[in-house]
Amino acid sequence: MTRTLAEIAAALGARVEGLAEIAVRGAAEPASAGPEDLALAMDPKYAEALAAGGARAAILWPGADWRAMGLEAAILVARPRLAMAGLTRAFDAGPDIAAGIHPAAVIDPRAEIGAGAAVGPLTVIGAGTRIGPGARIAAQVFIGRDVTVGADALILAGARIMDRVRIGDRFVCQPGAVIGADGFSFVTPEKSGVEEVRETLGQRSQARDQSWVRIHSLGTVEIGDDVEIGANSAIDRGTIRATRIGSGTKLDNLVHVGHNVEIGRDCLLCGQVGIAGSARIGDRVVMGGQCGVSDNIFVGDDVVAGGATKIFSNAPAGRVLLGSPALKMDTHVEAWKNIRRLPRLFAQVAELRAAARRGPGNGTEEP
Amino acid sequence: MTRTLAEIAAALGARVEGLAEIAVRGAAEPASAGPEDLALAMDPKYAEALAAGGARAAILWPGADWRAMGLEAAILVARPRLAMAGLTRAFDAGPDIAAGIHPAAVIDPRAEIGAGAAVGPLTVIGAGTRIGPGARIAAQVFIGRDVTVGADALILAGARIMDRVRIGDRFVCQPGAVIGADGFSFVTPEKSGVEEVRETLGQRSQARDQSWVRIHSLGTVEIGDDVEIGANSAIDRGTIRATRIGSGTKLDNLVHVGHNVEIGRDCLLCGQVGIAGSARIGDRVVMGGQCGVSDNIFVGDDVVAGGATKIFSNAPAGRVLLGSPALKMDTHVEAWKNIRRLPRLFAQVAELRAAARRGPGNGTEEP
Amino acid sequence: MTRTLAEIAAALGARVEGLAEIAVRGAAEPASAGPEDLALAMDPKYAEALAAGGARAAILWPGADWRAMGLEAAILVARPRLAMAGLTRAFDAGPDIAAGIHPAAVIDPRAEIGAGAAVGPLTVIGAGTRIGPGARIAAQVFIGRDVTVGADALILAGARIMDRVRIGDRFVCQPGAVIGADGFSFVTPEKSGVEEVRETLGQRSQARDQSWVRIHSLGTVEIGDDVEIGANSAIDRGTIRATRIGSGTKLDNLVHVGHNVEIGRDCLLCGQVGIAGSARIGDRVVMGGQCGVSDNIFVGDDVVAGGATKIFSNAPAGRVLLGSPALKMDTHVEAWKNIRRLPRLFAQVAELRAAARRGPGNGTEEP
Repeated sequence: MTRTLAEIAAALGARVEGLAEIAVRGAAEPASAGPEDLALAMDPKYAEALAAGGARAAILWPGADWRAMGLEAAILVARPRLAMAGLTRAFDAGPDIAAGIHPAAVIDPRAEIGAGAAVGPLTVIGAGTRIGPGARIAAQVFIGRDVTVGADALILAGARIMDRVRIGDRFVCQPGAVIGADGFSFVTPEKSGVEEVRETLGQRSQARDQSWVRIHSLGTVEIGDDVEIGANSAIDRGTIRATRIGSGTKLDNLVHVGHNVEIGRDCLLCGQVGIAGSARIGDRVVMGGQCGVSDNIFVGDDVVAGGATKIFSNAPAGRVLLGSPALKMDTHVEAWKNIRRLPRLFAQVAELRAAARRGPGNGTEEP
Repeated sequence: MTRTLAEIAAALGARVEGLAEIAVRGAAEPASAGPEDLALAMDPKYAEALAAGGARAAILWPGADWRAMGLEAAILVARPRLAMAGLTRAFDAGPDIAAGIHPAAVIDPRAEIGAGAAVGPLTVIGAGTRIGPGARIAAQVFIGRDVTVGADALILAGARIMDRVRIGDRFVCQPGAVIGADGFSFVTPEKSGVEEVRETLGQRSQARDQSWVRIHSLGTVEIGDDVEIGANSAIDRGTIRATRIGSGTKLDNLVHVGHNVEIGRDCLLCGQVGIAGSARIGDRVVMGGQCGVSDNIFVGDDVVAGGATKIFSNAPAGRVLLGSPALKMDTHVEAWKNIRRLPRLFAQVAELRAAARRGPGNGTEEP
Repeated sequence: MTRTLAEIAAALGARVEGLAEIAVRGAAEPASAGPEDLALAMDPKYAEALAAGGARAAILWPGADWRAMGLEAAILVARPRLAMAGLTRAFDAGPDIAAGIHPAAVIDPRAEIGAGAAVGPLTVIGAGTRIGPGARIAAQVFIGRDVTVGADALILAGARIMDRVRIGDRFVCQPGAVIGADGFSFVTPEKSGVEEVRETLGQRSQARDQSWVRIHSLGTVEIGDDVEIGANSAIDRGTIRATRIGSGTKLDNLVHVGHNVEIGRDCLLCGQVGIAGSARIGDRVVMGGQCGVSDNIFVGDDVVAGGATKIFSNAPAGRVLLGSPALKMDTHVEAWKNIRRLPRLFAQVAELRAAARRGPGNGTEEP
């Protein structure tokens, strides 16, 4: 696949300077770019590497003097990562899913597959399920009974979407994700050790036998438009109502979302985040990798949590959190600065105590 | 599927007050329940929402005045979550797995499939494997060679059960779980950097090349009765003996269980818990999400660990743990209270030191 | 499968004492070993258990008096875990993958499968993909288009290797691993809340709407020789260049490797480790379970990180790390020792302040 600079600039909403008809096959880092690559050098720090490479054209920072770098053409952009989005979309051929329905797919005759949809080999689609138009469903996918998937979905190899799950348009599902497994919800006939610990904040009486009875998950999972779910992530169905993920929200790989959880719009949950059952997450929340949220907790709109933050209690809107347990970011940073300074504090207190023991007139001397 | 209130009450071991012959199609939250739903309102705080909804019947707390709420019938229960277990079981139609063996399953002729078992399309079952009666095995499952699975198993789409694994009755396996992968066990021909660090508690001499030789896993995984394994969880086989999971134990999604681990009876391990190789976990242990247990550690019976607790050393029976590193819950809570108070302590010590420098007679004044 | 002691000793590079022609069927722990087992007792602490068991032969520590333990033969070894590697390899029959290509595999005619390769049922292999000689590919595996896999690979059930991934020789892939999912890379058209937080270290102005635009992953994943990937792990493709994993590196189960990450040679990453996008990890790095590495961070050669260590900033070569946030191991240990001593420090400071308030001549008395 080749693209002319003119085509790429149009995709980016930008303008070409120089030879707009130069065609490139792909994008490359400045030093390794050849004459058929478009070099990516959106920051002046790449100018030298660019000179070392062999590109004829590059994407550059605003005001860059591309002629002085020996280039024949350039596209100048103000927001580099946004340009990357447009550029990579222009060059992405997408996964290799052949048009039409593969003969080795196992599709229930009562399923409805939308116009123009492609379904790969060994994929299973159950009765009553409706797949919107333009869907690309890869090999070995499982889609259960009475599932709804909107238009233009991309569902990759080995994803599993269980019975009755409802999903909006432009859904992207990475390989191995499981949507709609049963919730992890159990109860003991008598009061359990955990219930005692929660009620007494850590104390418990004599332990005794307890066996767990399952609370079945009658609810489902409802997912809005423009949602992406990462590889091998797992989202459980709700108990009575649905587990919900709002439009525009993106989940990375190996993320766990428990039963009854509600996640708002336009959130980003990075790799290995875990949200325990019945937690509610607002809109535009961003969590770094390995964050955790306790069950039944509320995390407000626009909360940002750094990597590995563990949120045990409600977080108000706009709060920036870090640490385990989660603290406001500056409180957390100060806490660890103070912990690092403890050896000095211990020494100072020991010195004060020694001086006090010596009594008045033998006061502290600066070391 | 409809159920009369009389049927539901019988399933819960409870009694109907009012019109026991009312039939409902499912359960719903109080405010959204319609005339064909059974409203779930086991706590007085739901009374108002119940009035706003359209249910004719509800499950209520003991002593509730259902007539005053405009209902025609009610089931009164003392332990709400236990009632939820009975109720959701009564209404759970289960996953859609057609009776019999699907023609697109690939079953070795030397496998034995029990009476009444259902096997979905594109599922593979190996030679010498015995599946108990009443099993429901969904699509795209892999069950290797010489595996034993007891009666009434439910194994969902894409689960993988590797060679020689032995599993008891009433097993539930969520989609994508892997049981019996090879253990993560490697050794270097010469002493490795990690061995040095362990022996010297953090010091190491000159680093040098090291390459890892695999210790193969000849053991298997043995799982008791009434065990449930969550979506995309992974349980490794043992090296010589088996990795073991006791009867009644439930694992949530994305849980990692290393080789040679032994987990007792009736434990609950929540989402993303990780148990490193050769750790032993007692009976009735409960771990919140994202807990971790170091290799070769012993965690006693009835230990309860809050979310994200990281257990690096043996934990005695009944201990309630929290934090990273794990501390007794009240010690952890006090530790973080103290850390939060450090700025004040630093100020106080600075003031004492200033007073000491000024010498006697210029003593501290309260700020 | 039986092996004589002479064969086993040859595999270990060791020598038999006693009846070298004794044949055993497998290895067992000392107490449970029968006459057809080779007992594993490489430490004197096992001598008693050995006497209780029924083994005729054992692997023992150097200098062990095997005749006095009632054995008929013994292999004496100096480095037990290395002996375990040789021994378990000798007895490992490997997974049950029938020779040849199963008729229910779906292999594109433009794929090249090497000599002697075995491919299981319901496995999909795409166009342009080349699989090296001697590969064993189990059931239900997905290998996309234009993938390269070297000689003697072992790829287990349900693994997914996406388009254009390149892998060296002797690759081992556990069930359910996903290699080459799309990177988690998004940008907002306007500056996002997270960008603001990063620039201002925690402060942010008014929150506003933001929606995420995807940066597509045009790069791939490049994996060296002798690499092993654990069950249900996920490795993302790079944006422009490749995500790279060096030769000899081993990843455990449920490990997450983000886009553009570079991992060196001979590293060990234990269960549930997460490496965020564009991080670089040196050679021979070892991370315990549940470690995390922030995006764009550099972790030097020979770093060792204990379980659950969260690395937020660059780590120099050879550093031994522990904790969240990661500190040098001894600093971390001292930090928590100090935190545990805080109640005493608070009491001491309170006492000093009380004494100061009482004024000179009323000095502290030791409690």
